[in-house]
Amino acid sequence: MIRIGLDIGGTGIKLGLVNEQGQILRKSSIETRTDISFQEQVLAMVNATKALLDAQGVSLDDIHSIGAGVPGIADPRTGEVIFCTNLGWNHVPFRSTFQQYINKPVYIDNDATVAGLAESVAGISKGTSSSVFLTLGTGVGAGIIINGRIWSGAHGVGSEVGHAILELDGEPCSCGNHGCVERYCSATAIIRMARELLVYHPESAIMKACGENLDNVNAKMVFDAARELDPIGLKVFNRYVSNLGQAIASLCNILDPEMVVLGGGVSRAGEYLIDAVRREYPKYMLYKDMPMPSVELAVLGADAGIIGASMLGD
Amino acid sequence: MIRIGLDIGGTGIKLGLVNEQGQILRKSSIETRTDISFQEQVLAMVNATKALLDAQGVSLDDIHSIGAGVPGIADPRTGEVIFCTNLGWNHVPFRSTFQQYINKPVYIDNDATVAGLAESVAGISKGTSSSVFLTLGTGVGAGIIINGRIWSGAHGVGSEVGHAILELDGEPCSCGNHGCVERYCSATAIIRMARELLVYHPESAIMKACGENLDNVNAKMVFDAARELDPIGLKVFNRYVSNLGQAIASLCNILDPEMVVLGGGVSRAGEYLIDAVRREYPKYMLYKDMPMPSVELAVLGADAGIIGASMLGD
Repeated sequence: MIRIGLDIGGTGIKLGLVNEQGQILRKSSIETRTDISFQEQVLAMVNATKALLDAQGVSLDDIHSIGAGVPGIADPRTGEVIFCTNLGWNHVPFRSTFQQYINKPVYIDNDATVAGLAESVAGISKGTSSSVFLTLGTGVGAGIIINGRIWSGAHGVGSEVGHAILELDGEPCSCGNHGCVERYCSATAIIRMARELLVYHPESAIMKACGENLDNVNAKMVFDAARELDPIGLKVFNRYVSNLGQAIASLCNILDPEMVVLGGGVSRAGEYLIDAVRREYPKYMLYKDMPMPSVELAVLGADAGIIGASMLGD
Repeated sequence: MIRIGLDIGGTGIKLGLVNEQGQILRKSSIETRTDISFQEQVLAMVNATKALLDAQGVSLDDIHSIGAGVPGIADPRTGEVIFCTNLGWNHVPFRSTFQQYINKPVYIDNDATVAGLAESVAGISKGTSSSVFLTLGTGVGAGIIINGRIWSGAHGVGSEVGHAILELDGEPCSCGNHGCVERYCSATAIIRMARELLVYHPESAIMKACGENLDNVNAKMVFDAARELDPIGLKVFNRYVSNLGQAIASLCNILDPEMVVLGGGVSRAGEYLIDAVRREYPKYMLYKDMPMPSVELAVLGADAGIIGASMLGD
């Protein structure tokens, strides 16, 4: 049987036909439009899905199920998208609307959760029965896999690791709290820490890289400077790795998964980041003499969304 | 079938015969002795178990399984107790040793995990499929139940919520890290916060309660003073509730269980504590418009250890 995965993003919707092993057979994409109604948005996805089936020469009879990953809150039980800023969705019945056009099982979940599932089915954490996937981007998202299945919580709103508190009365977060993990472990955190130091250290190589405009600083500039042993770059990198190491160890002290997988923009720093994180997080593990979760880089990249979405459901 | 539960503690070992509904049919206890070998300790438990069966008039044929909760690290897969300070155990083969005398399935797990299982089988969280149990005592222990089963992690060392970090570079913890949850949410934290303030506020009612000796301060004195509106008692109580609310919300943002259950010595403050916690933790939940885990007081008290241990395994 073939599975269909939809990776619904803020600018584009990627879709693919995926086999039972998690390999993409064919994929396509459409633009995300917010100038049309929810019903029309779903119809556009349905039409793209049908076109993809035609192109592959398969019929709906060959389809096992359809899954969608959304950048927001989805209730896997009801098939409702509770909230999705990028698409302007607020309590929309995704499953039942989609099924008006294609009467197959339809599953939804959060995009980070879906990417975590993808890695555990066809990526780096394949073969593990428990893992936590962290997306280190503008914010910090997560997907939790326990006993080989997604754990999204009793109300479908779990795995928000980015909004666990890492520092009492810490940095203000966009969620309204203070000290959330994502204020310390996201690309945004790297940029904030660099900007704070650059005010007093205009001699840093980062200053040249950003064209002397602090608004242009990005995480890559900071890490590149660190690799070149720029003191400010190194200071931010080390602080970031310490923060991330403590967040990972906290999560492992709670959940003790087989593996922690790092994805998202920051993880593109690759070996330079993962080597440092692997040195750091064991310092904060409670049981230093026991086997620890391994920490690995995600491998599926941009395809994770399609693959993971296709694997939702049974 | 009858299940046997052993609650192995630092001063005493409680044991009981438990029916499938989690009701204790008969119980007894023996002293914890550390002046004898591990083999002799196990033999003492075996003899107490046999005596209990005799007293109830049942035979080993009526026994489903034997479970033990230990105040330390237990590996549920191998049946080995990795580390248990109170009994002086270090990598001891509990299961295989016990089975030399009684050839039945033997299960072990951490005592907080076992108490959490008890509440979910026969206590306040009965009927939920996911819950987190927190023991608020000298430290902070936890038991995580997911899909109706204990989640102790891939290496059996999870659910150490007390050693997730709540404050970067915070209070030094006995584990060697800084800022662990248990430094802010245990009875020990209440005592520390009170002592720090009492140095500058000897007029507090707590000072009289402790006989003007800061070494005598305990959590109950501080909460009692708070109930009487003593400013220092109230300050510590409010700070404690804020800390605990943030720790609970962090856990819920990650795991989103149906229920969080509070047990341990601090939870004896009952309604006074739980009412305050219920006002506090929603402030830190990411999705304030979604259903949230309920927060409840444990109900099984001292019997939780026997009941939960008996329910280990299938």
